Amino acid sequence: MTQTPTKPLLRALAGERVAPAPIWLMRQAGRYLPEYRALRAKAGGFLDLCFTPDYATEITLQPIRRFGLDAAILFSDILVIPWALGQPLRFEEGRGPVLEPIAPDGLDRLEREGVVERLAPVFETVRRVKSALPPPTTLIGFAGAPWTVACYMIEGGGSKEFLKAKRWALGAPDRFQQLIDLLVVATVDYLSAQVEAGAETLQLFDSWAGVLSETELERWSIAPLQRIVEGVKARHPSVPVILFPRGSGLGYARFAEASGADGLGLDTTVPLRFAAELQKQITVQGNLDPAALVTGGRALEEGIDRILSALGAGPFIFNLGHGVVPETPPEHVAALIERIQRTAA
Amino acid sequence: MTQTPTKPLLRALAGERVAPAPIWLMRQAGRYLPEYRALRAKAGGFLDLCFTPDYATEITLQPIRRFGLDAAILFSDILVIPWALGQPLRFEEGRGPVLEPIAPDGLDRLEREGVVERLAPVFETVRRVKSALPPPTTLIGFAGAPWTVACYMIEGGGSKEFLKAKRWALGAPDRFQQLIDLLVVATVDYLSAQVEAGAETLQLFDSWAGVLSETELERWSIAPLQRIVEGVKARHPSVPVILFPRGSGLGYARFAEASGADGLGLDTTVPLRFAAELQKQITVQGNLDPAALVTGGRALEEGIDRILSALGAGPFIFNLGHGVVPETPPEHVAALIERIQRTAA
Repeated sequence: MTQTPTKPLLRALAGERVAPAPIWLMRQAGRYLPEYRALRAKAGGFLDLCFTPDYATEITLQPIRRFGLDAAILFSDILVIPWALGQPLRFEEGRGPVLEPIAPDGLDRLEREGVVERLAPVFETVRRVKSALPPPTTLIGFAGAPWTVACYMIEGGGSKEFLKAKRWALGAPDRFQQLIDLLVVATVDYLSAQVEAGAETLQLFDSWAGVLSETELERWSIAPLQRIVEGVKARHPSVPVILFPRGSGLGYARFAEASGADGLGLDTTVPLRFAAELQKQITVQGNLDPAALVTGGRALEEGIDRILSALGAGPFIFNLGHGVVPETPPEHVAALIERIQRTAA
Repeated sequence: MTQTPTKPLLRALAGERVAPAPIWLMRQAGRYLPEYRALRAKAGGFLDLCFTPDYATEITLQPIRRFGLDAAILFSDILVIPWALGQPLRFEEGRGPVLEPIAPDGLDRLEREGVVERLAPVFETVRRVKSALPPPTTLIGFAGAPWTVACYMIEGGGSKEFLKAKRWALGAPDRFQQLIDLLVVATVDYLSAQVEAGAETLQLFDSWAGVLSETELERWSIAPLQRIVEGVKARHPSVPVILFPRGSGLGYARFAEASGADGLGLDTTVPLRFAAELQKQITVQGNLDPAALVTGGRALEEGIDRILSALGAGPFIFNLGHGVVPETPPEHVAALIERIQRTAA
């Protein structure tokens, strides 16, 4: 028996129009906040932050304390799954994640058993955050989408062309499917455990969906995400799922109609009239340019108002079209939230 | 009086269905060819290649000799315009272009007069290539789009977020408009001089169109490109213009309806059914994944066949969805061309 949700973010994900629009920001916890930088300076590496519940809880809560957003998103990283599968991972200052790249013949060396057990500190963080959150604030769990995680696993880090990942997908699709299948299973287990620890909704980040052709997008992004949504909902029927297939452009329509998700995160490039069309099928979330939040002033106000007036009449969650960047002045975030909350009409 | 074109590429740009589909490839001259690497090793820096007609002519002709494509594209770089405006530019091995970044108060130091004169070696290359090309081969001139060129000028090179460029555009739009206006004027002059030297069609590369929101795309990509198309056609009414607003997703429809261009280059992500819709308004060009060309075999064949069967019945030019990458085996390019030319039905 599903209860009617009362938290604003969950109401929007249930298809309701909520005014003022619920708001949270991708990377709302992070380097633009002095209190994050202070904690970061004390702690060890980035992975230590993710795997130490004291740190991860504190970081998750920092933006909630400062701004009173409608949702907290677990502080973690999409690459904890490859790490839990046994792939060596480190984060280098100024370079980002570095993994030992995996080749098709390395698949069998991944440790499929025990993934959830190795990620126990993450669930401990979820439990602690949940008990500390103010009642109207929703707790969002998350994971990377299989295509994006596979890209990192194969390229060994970020990439411009994703040539190694694409060559594997195009040249040895059966073997690539095995990697995707393995990630689907691990991700369903991981997300389900987050729900069991207290996550109330889940977001899947497909940061590199935007490099795939139509055919490959269908096979390597939409299909696996659809299986994850199905798998999680088989265990937790009432948990809403948000997909963020960044850069998928015209592919967004397919996510709305075929993925089975409850919410769709729109990147900055998605035209608002098209977003309003998607909104007839699914709750949309987005899509202010993070650069407008850095700039502030009139550019920020006009950007906010344009989005609210195009999408505020349907099921909608305000967010950026990509993560908060380190150059963002925290007072611009405060101004954004204030403007959203003033627009309750 | 406009003559009916006879070259396959120009016929397609005039709105005709041409079978077999004319084909050329973005970056068809470049590092994947051993003859290019040999010449590169002999010459000085990358800019020397662009500004020495002996080298630039030879490089432009290399893929034509090897493969017999339907078009040669001038070997040059989109950053020769900032260079001609007096902005220091160098190319670093493994890092790409490096410019001394320009700030809003540096606009007045750009040398607006004499741009075309300083680019004289480029037009000499165009003349030489034109006289050397086989009769059915079309000569394509090109330039960068103002938004993309402005990004390089402001960021000082490539970028992930284009935060400096976006902050300028959002925070000081009047001053940013001055930079765009200046680039529109220089680009119209530069492209017109290419036509006068022998270029038969022109392509404008807006490589970073895909980072703009709908409103910013309209103002900083579509509007300036429309003015360039208009400006060039005022001087050379019969020259067709192709736009390549890479990554502009749903924005592609606006380019088809509002830009005044004759052809639209589609990146790899554009779904083929949507491309076929655009084809009712404009000649489309694209959009095989460069990774499929690297992979070869079945992935390449299926990729080609899918595109031909979706777009081959309308005005169409075969191309990649992005440039040829250095890892591409030249024999895969030969196989691609052979398959296209076999499909004449």
